Amino acid sequence: MVRNILITAGGTSEKIDEVRVISNFSSGRLGLAVAKSFLESEHNEIGKIYYLCDKNTVVPDDSRVEVVRVAGVQGLLDELTRLLTNETIDAVVHAMAVSDYMVKQVTTVDAIRSGEEAAPLLSGGEGKISSEVEDLAILLKRTPKVIGEIKKLAEDTILVGFKLLSNVEQSVLISTALKLLHKNHCDMVLANDLSEITGDQHVGYLIMPDGSYHRYSTKIQIAEAIVQAVFEQLDRKEAEQ
Amino acid sequence: MVRNILITAGGTSEKIDEVRVISNFSSGRLGLAVAKSFLESEHNEIGKIYYLCDKNTVVPDDSRVEVVRVAGVQGLLDELTRLLTNETIDAVVHAMAVSDYMVKQVTTVDAIRSGEEAAPLLSGGEGKISSEVEDLAILLKRTPKVIGEIKKLAEDTILVGFKLLSNVEQSVLISTALKLLHKNHCDMVLANDLSEITGDQHVGYLIMPDGSYHRYSTKIQIAEAIVQAVFEQLDRKEAEQ
Repeated sequence: MVRNILITAGGTSEKIDEVRVISNFSSGRLGLAVAKSFLESEHNEIGKIYYLCDKNTVVPDDSRVEVVRVAGVQGLLDELTRLLTNETIDAVVHAMAVSDYMVKQVTTVDAIRSGEEAAPLLSGGEGKISSEVEDLAILLKRTPKVIGEIKKLAEDTILVGFKLLSNVEQSVLISTALKLLHKNHCDMVLANDLSEITGDQHVGYLIMPDGSYHRYSTKIQIAEAIVQAVFEQLDRKEAEQ
Repeated sequence: MVRNILITAGGTSEKIDEVRVISNFSSGRLGLAVAKSFLESEHNEIGKIYYLCDKNTVVPDDSRVEVVRVAGVQGLLDELTRLLTNETIDAVVHAMAVSDYMVKQVTTVDAIRSGEEAAPLLSGGEGKISSEVEDLAILLKRTPKVIGEIKKLAEDTILVGFKLLSNVEQSVLISTALKLLHKNHCDMVLANDLSEITGDQHVGYLIMPDGSYHRYSTKIQIAEAIVQAVFEQLDRKEAEQ
């Protein structure tokens, strides 16, 4: 059975101006490990992997991989919509660290305090901010929740969500991830905590809709577990049909 | 004559929190071209190239290159100080797009308007900002001017500065770059405008202290011109001694 997979990986960049962005430290290595694990899987044939990522993210080198570079959260949504509408995608592994915020306005503390609807220094990412402003303020607004759109666009696809928290109790991590899973109709969620990601170590909990989970300790283990679980669910769905 | 060169390349990243940064679109390809041009130069022998860049910047692959990864403007200053104090550096090519701003505080518009010295949501880049804040504001402060420190640390080194503007008249670009040159005791400055950098085209003006300049049209041309001018000045200095 030939399978098409869509993976989102790495971080997103949101424009502040023509040269500046807000981005994140995501290396994209977990998404890369998942792609490699799919490509090396023996039991199932991969037709195509659509690999959506920012322009600087490292990508897998394989003829079955179609790299789609996206700019910002809106660009990601646009490409996801296009691919999930036009192609048959068996599973979506949404590993990208999507920015929660995008730039609403660049202004100054003075302008905010004065309470006027002060003219922004910049809007829409055009131009370049002067380097001479003493009290620059970047105002942010929340981005649309990309993960919530995926099952709306393709209800039959298997969806793997990701939740990254920082320095929380394991029970909080698991329950937060499970909430994300149910809210967005994920088939599984990989939960991880920044404090447990150091060098080669990468602790991850792969959580199923019934709340059961397994713990893994490296990116490769996590990637292999995700790939195996995705294939199992695809096979089960097929047997049911 | 064996020469040691220090090149700064690519962009800088300033931490907002544990996962988010403000960075810029600089690809580091101009710095890379300069490094290659030095390494391929036939007339002079390169002893070592110290290559200072952010953790994601592409670096030259050569045994004579010592890559020094720096985090943020302060990290760049620290490493520059260490190297210019302890090593003999014949020339510094400061191509890095150094951030003009670093994060002072993460807060909300409400807190700014209320005028209190509101507790920041975060300080010092610790922790991770919640994704639930509706009116997030990042307050910035200006970073120290790195280029101004270089001749203070090593007055005998040849200093190549860079000035990038966006969509200005050529005369404004040249005069702004010349001001930068004199203020920071550069031996030459490469001036360029974002609107003249597209794909393979990269227009640059290499400006000398007397205000004379040449125009180049590609990164390779610019790199070769810089390397040739640096070697000429080094030879001239040596002849004078």
